[in-house]
Amino acid sequence: MTNGHYICIVKRKIHREDILKAGLELMFHQGYNATGIKEITDSISIPKGSFYNHFESKEEFALELVKAYCNNGAKMYEARFLAPSVPPLKRFEGFFDTLIENYAEKMDYKLGCVMSNFSAEMSDVNENFRVLLDEEFNRCQSIMAQCLKEAQEDGSLDKDADANKLAGFILNGWHGALVRMKSTGNATPLETFRDLTMNKILA
Amino acid sequence: MTNGHYICIVKRKIHREDILKAGLELMFHQGYNATGIKEITDSISIPKGSFYNHFESKEEFALELVKAYCNNGAKMYEARFLAPSVPPLKRFEGFFDTLIENYAEKMDYKLGCVMSNFSAEMSDVNENFRVLLDEEFNRCQSIMAQCLKEAQEDGSLDKDADANKLAGFILNGWHGALVRMKSTGNATPLETFRDLTMNKILA
Repeated sequence: MTNGHYICIVKRKIHREDILKAGLELMFHQGYNATGIKEITDSISIPKGSFYNHFESKEEFALELVKAYCNNGAKMYEARFLAPSVPPLKRFEGFFDTLIENYAEKMDYKLGCVMSNFSAEMSDVNENFRVLLDEEFNRCQSIMAQCLKEAQEDGSLDKDADANKLAGFILNGWHGALVRMKSTGNATPLETFRDLTMNKILA
Repeated sequence: MTNGHYICIVKRKIHREDILKAGLELMFHQGYNATGIKEITDSISIPKGSFYNHFESKEEFALELVKAYCNNGAKMYEARFLAPSVPPLKRFEGFFDTLIENYAEKMDYKLGCVMSNFSAEMSDVNENFRVLLDEEFNRCQSIMAQCLKEAQEDGSLDKDADANKLAGFILNGWHGALVRMKSTGNATPLETFRDLTMNKILA
């Protein structure tokens, strides 16, 4: 209390997670190079310096952001592709249908996936991103492959197929459909991918 | 001749094509946003101002660069997929084999394709790039579809298949394999794509 007035200082605590969330939103939409640290801190109305209390550099920050995104993605893959209550090949159909609906309703056929966006933009020029993305793509592929092996065990998929190779083909093709979707601006690439994968590859 | 000495002024003529070529090299590797105009002009030792004698803006420049790249690509697609001396489905095999060899020998499994790289980086944020890439992807898809229709006519491909849809699936899947290759740093995604496309999709 000074001169009969209360001086009230509210110091907002900036959480590491808030900066990561704001950065993800911007970098997912615009990419790594188009997004500046100041733009990120401005978007949540904090001084640029606060960023450096939590992260050493934009690169360290974005690697953590991609890692967190991929961890969430892997959890979703596990929930979808290792769901024991759904027949293995039906899990693929459920995955495609749910994601197509999400892109239609929530994302206006934009964004795609952080993994393919960053692979296209960053893997050639930054070995740290390349190695991280390689590991994370492999993690997704291995979850899909596990589901395909279950399909081989229950007889719904040809036992002679190479489950890991098949999973790679599907994972990469799905990402190709996402990259194309960003140019078509509609569901066609995703729907075509779902239909031919279910009817030709997993039939 | 002045004071017995010849003054020799060599004014190098800067061609529009030289700037485009230098820009393609940098933007193909680093992407649009990571590449500055000064970096492009520095790489061919010309003043930054020369750029603006030929192009109004970085955007106009990059749109022309992508268009030129795609025109070359379309010519290659036509030469490969509309080659009357090769059976239609064999043309796909030839296309995959040649490109896989190129990526191994000349590109160290980097770069990928300007079309998918720019689609991933630019289509969400710049409508001019999105529209151009959409048209160019459609152009490639339609050339592939024409080849598939020939295969249907000569009986090597199921007549009931939707050739345009099939072409979209193959084109997008190939781009997905290229994007994944940038992270694996090897030929696996391309080889997997070729093998499963030839044996499952086009069998």
